[in-house]
Formats: sequence, C-alpha cells, structure tokens
Amino acid sequence: MTDLKNDRFLKALLREPVDTTPVWMMRQAGRYLPEYKATRQQAGDFLSLCKNTELACEVTLQPLRRYALDAAILFSDILTIPDAMGLGLYFEQGEGPKFKKTVRTEADVTALPMLKTADSLSYVTDAVRMIRRELNGRVPLIGFSGSPWTLATYMIEGGSSREFTQTKQMLYRTPALLHALLQHLAGAVTEYLNAQILAGAQAVQIFDSWGGALAHREYSEFSLQYMQKIVNGLIREHEGRRVPVIVFTKGGGQWLPQMLACGADALGLDWTTSLATARQTVAGQVALQGNLDPSTLYASPARIREAVRLMLADAYADGVNTGYVANLGHGITQWVDPAHAGVFIEAVHELSAPYFG
Amino acid sequence: MTDLKNDRFLKALLREPVDTTPVWMMRQAGRYLPEYKATRQQAGDFLSLCKNTELACEVTLQPLRRYALDAAILFSDILTIPDAMGLGLYFEQGEGPKFKKTVRTEADVTALPMLKTADSLSYVTDAVRMIRRELNGRVPLIGFSGSPWTLATYMIEGGSSREFTQTKQMLYRTPALLHALLQHLAGAVTEYLNAQILAGAQAVQIFDSWGGALAHREYSEFSLQYMQKIVNGLIREHEGRRVPVIVFTKGGGQWLPQMLACGADALGLDWTTSLATARQTVAGQVALQGNLDPSTLYASPARIREAVRLMLADAYADGVNTGYVANLGHGITQWVDPAHAGVFIEAVHELSAPYFG
Repeated sequence: MTDLKNDRFLKALLREPVDTTPVWMMRQAGRYLPEYKATRQQAGDFLSLCKNTELACEVTLQPLRRYALDAAILFSDILTIPDAMGLGLYFEQGEGPKFKKTVRTEADVTALPMLKTADSLSYVTDAVRMIRRELNGRVPLIGFSGSPWTLATYMIEGGSSREFTQTKQMLYRTPALLHALLQHLAGAVTEYLNAQILAGAQAVQIFDSWGGALAHREYSEFSLQYMQKIVNGLIREHEGRRVPVIVFTKGGGQWLPQMLACGADALGLDWTTSLATARQTVAGQVALQGNLDPSTLYASPARIREAVRLMLADAYADGVNTGYVANLGHGITQWVDPAHAGVFIEAVHELSAPYFG
Repeated sequence: MTDLKNDRFLKALLREPVDTTPVWMMRQAGRYLPEYKATRQQAGDFLSLCKNTELACEVTLQPLRRYALDAAILFSDILTIPDAMGLGLYFEQGEGPKFKKTVRTEADVTALPMLKTADSLSYVTDAVRMIRRELNGRVPLIGFSGSPWTLATYMIEGGSSREFTQTKQMLYRTPALLHALLQHLAGAVTEYLNAQILAGAQAVQIFDSWGGALAHREYSEFSLQYMQKIVNGLIREHEGRRVPVIVFTKGGGQWLPQMLACGADALGLDWTTSLATARQTVAGQVALQGNLDPSTLYASPARIREAVRLMLADAYADGVNTGYVANLGHGITQWVDPAHAGVFIEAVHELSAPYFG
C-alpha cells in the first residue's frame, strides 16, 4: 500500500501533533455538486449509484478535485445493511428512503439473515479498494455505517420518520424484542465495518443519526451500548496504523459524558453544541469533530469565514492544538453554492494557522 | 374571581412550598381522548374547534373530568397569531399546518399588520373567560403562545419543515430581515399573552418548539433574545397573584445556562435532558417542568410507574421539594391509551409522597 501523503486527519483523531486543522464535510459527495448530479443521472438512481463500483468511486473523488479536503469518505448509504438483509430499500422521488418489508415482530427479527459482506455487500468493499487505488495515498479514506439504533428505526418504521411511533412502541412495550434486533444489527455492523477496514478504510465513522430521539436513559441502553459493542469488536490496527473510530450521535451533545466511555477515538458534534464547552467536557480523553451549522454555507464568504474563525477559537479554547477535526455539524445540503463550500475548506486551513504558529 | 382551590401548580413554578408534585400534560386535550375526537367531529375541523368558544372550553375541561390534573391549558393552536395576521392557516388531512401565504421578502414583513387580540383573536380571550368560569377555581388555567422564532419558521416555510431551508437561508443571508420579522412577532406575542392574562390566564407558557434547530450561538440571537423581550413585557401580577411564565425550548437542554437569564419563572425540558443534571445547572434560580418521554405512556402501567419514580428521584435529587412541575417532555400522542395517561398522573401524586413526608 502507498504511504499516506496527508495524514493530519488520522493524527488529529488520535490527538497526535498536526500542522494545521484537518477538514472534511459530511455528505461532501452530494447534490450540491453539478458533477455529482451528472454522474448520478448516468447511474440512473441513487441506489444504482451506490452499487456501481466505478461510479461510486468517481463521486467519492469529485469533491477532492475541487477542494483541499483532508479526507475522502466512501460514497454509500447508511441503509445498505438492511437492504442486504432483504428488506428491499428504494427511494421515491422527493421522499426519503423506504423499505418494502418492515421488522416489527419476533418472527421478523428471527428471519433476518446473518450479514456476510463478502457475499451481499461486495460492491461496498470493491468501491473501497478502487477508491484507495485512485487516491494513491493523497488523503485517508473513511468507511462508515449507520448505528444499530438508527438502522433499527428505518427497519421498524419502513422508512424515515418524525415521531418514531412504531419504534418507540417496541422500545417501551417489548424492549427485549428491540434488544434482539439491536444485538443482531451490532453484529452485522461490526462485520461490515471490519470488511471495510480490511478492504482499505483507514478510519470509520458510525452515524447515529437518530440517537437524539431517545430519552437520556434510553440513549445509553438502546444506542450507545450497541455502538460500544461494535467499537470493541473492530479491527483497530491495519496496514501498520491505528484505525480511528468516530461516533456521531446527532442531537447527542448533552450525552458527551456517557459517550466518553464507548471506546471511540473521536466524537462528532452537531451545530447545537458549543465546541468550547464540549472540549472542557471531554478534557482531552477523545478528539472532537464538527460542528458548523451546514446552513452557514448559505451566508456570504465573509460571514462563513467569521463563523469558521469562531469555531476554531472554540475548538482550541483549551489551548490544545490537536484532537480536533473541522467539519459541518451534519451533511452539506443540496442548496449550497459549491464556491461557498470551498470558502469553508480554505478558511479552516487559513484561519487555523495562528494555532500552529 | 373565585379563589383557587388548588394552587400547587402556581406555587411550584414560583418555588414556594407545595404539598405534592403538581402535574399536567402538554396537549392533554387531544386526540388520545375519544370525547375529544367526538367534539372535534362536531366542530368540523381542528381550526373550527379552536375558534368555537364553547367547544374549545369543552375540550379544555375534558381531561380534567378524567384525571386529577393540577392545571388546565387553554385549547388553541400556536399558529393563531400568523393566522390573525392574514396568512391563511389551514390543515390538510394527515399533514401538518399550512399557510396560504408565506413571509419571505422585506415587502412581506412590512405588510404584516399589527396584532390586536381584541379585534382578531377575541375567540381566544372569550374561551379563556369561559374556561375560567367553568373551572370555578378548581385549578389554574394556563395561556400560551408560540415563540417568535417558532412562529417565524412556519410563516417563512409556509408550514412545518424538517430542514428549515427557507428560514435558515434568511437567517444566514439576510439576518436583518429575519430580525425585523422576529421583532414584529415579539410585539404581537406580548400583546396576545397579556390579553390572555387580562382575560384570566393564571400562568403562560411560550412554546419554542423549533428553537432546537438553531446553532448554539444563533439560539440566543434569534430565539432566546425575543422570548426575553416578551417576558419583560408581560403583566406579571394579576388578580392579586403573580402570573408565572414558563419558557419551553424543545431541544434546548444544552442551553439552560443561557436561558436562566431570560426572566422566566420556569423552564420546560424535553425528554433528552437529565432532570438531575438540569436541577444542578439551574441551582434553584428557576423552576423546571417536564420531562417524561411521551412514548413512555405506550409502556405497561408498571413500567410507567417505574419511569415516574426515576423522574421524581431526579427532580428532587438536590433535596429541594418544590420548583418542579411534572409533565411529559412534549405533547401526548394520539396513540396513547387514556388509562395509561391516568396511570402517569396518579403515579406522580402517589410516588411523590415520600418527598413531602
């Protein structure tokens, strides 16, 4: 394998010295880029794009051609696992993801197959290998998965949801059944992420997109606990390097003290949390990643730069100039001008210079 | 006016001694009650029910006939103000609220009329007066309004939203325009709540349902600041009693330190926040209200009681047995069995006894 030319992203996650603040954007391969839209049209639909190794590789690399990003992230979807389990993922125009089958009964849970990435998700590991080859050591590649709780909400509801009525009913009425589903998913996510690591992912992120819908006690029991199991089961060293793990619970800012114990190298933050407060809370035990409101990119370049300046001041308010990866607090939206995304990336590198003086 | 027979709700909000934990439920007059559904059918639709003084009074009182609630809350909608401003509120079957007109330009903001509750919202104050008469001092009556930020999101988007794209674009691109709208709304909400207080509301709650969508700095600037203006402008004493104000920002658990300064007597909490931690944070400066996950009411009576026991232990973990009002962390859902709501109410009164020994 080629040596990494830019490893500041991995180093920052491990709280090792870096030369500048590393930065990437969640959903950086996405609809705000005209070249992405063109490739997606070529693929047919979103899911076909995910499953087409060459085109998935292409859209992964597109934002790196435009911006000085410090990491690439595999282009894929968080719902590949339930799709591979036979639930029939599909996307309707203008709506979120949907499943043909739902998982609501004991029989439904028992019927779920064991996941074998090598069999049913080889398109993902093929893409990882091809992207690594194409990146040729320019920046590290991030692999990812949805968290068991987040996957479970989609599988139980049959799609995205506002109130998670079915999921919450299962949680409060038949918690043992939900635990059985989460346990099954934790095994699957572990196997899936390990396959990505073996194929060449140099860091992995667990997206707990709906963890914030849980009550404070239930978050530990129904989401964090299973992410901790996954982290414990991951291959943590590969190609002679440590493989850092990032756990991102959207809406989880209040739960950082609990999350510290889950074994992740870094925790992601959404835009509702003060980075300065979060740095105090984690007290150097883990790195942090985030957390500009993605909507900030609607602002003028001058305002974007000012927001980045404030974010960096918060991130390094504790006087420690590592253990931080700049990012948005959630995925970039399709309404952002690509030039504004560029302003954000440049501002991070430029305005962090004083901290590395 | 008749003397209040049960004032423990008002006393707890003012951190005065109480004999037991007061309890009410957000959206306690709602679709989980068959008698509510019958009255709503009689009215025609939701908005007609809000505007029919007698039927609005009837549904306000319905939950008090079933449960030993310690407060009544005016049956109305948070969107009465923009409706009275001429935006044309309507509800489509199975969807959220919508407006015929949106507010997106300077001309749109300038065109908004000054609100005069006596002219355009007399159906609300008429209902307040009738409910007070019918309550006959049994429990206090809560008036309410949406927060300026929350009202603005509906007015700008033209309905409910997931990502608040239009609102966030206004916030980051033309913040002065958004401030003009919020300033106008703060005046309207103040006038509206004062009219409710003069008509007989004995406490008021400001629902900042979408405050949690803001970034941590923007929350202060675009939501909290305007709620503070409102609180400063409210009539705080009426009928020889202090009129307590509750501010509830859903998703605002991380911002309690900022919220302490807004002048509210009490802060509402959703279910993501630990009550024990929140009590430490507010350190007796304000009362707290909340915060059981409404979905907990899907559980068995035994589990509901256990959840109430834990909530009370958290609420009084600081050893102070007032300054707390039990409630759900958000509105009760239509899928709850009314008997389970009864278990919740009874459990609060019964299981709090040890704290008042």
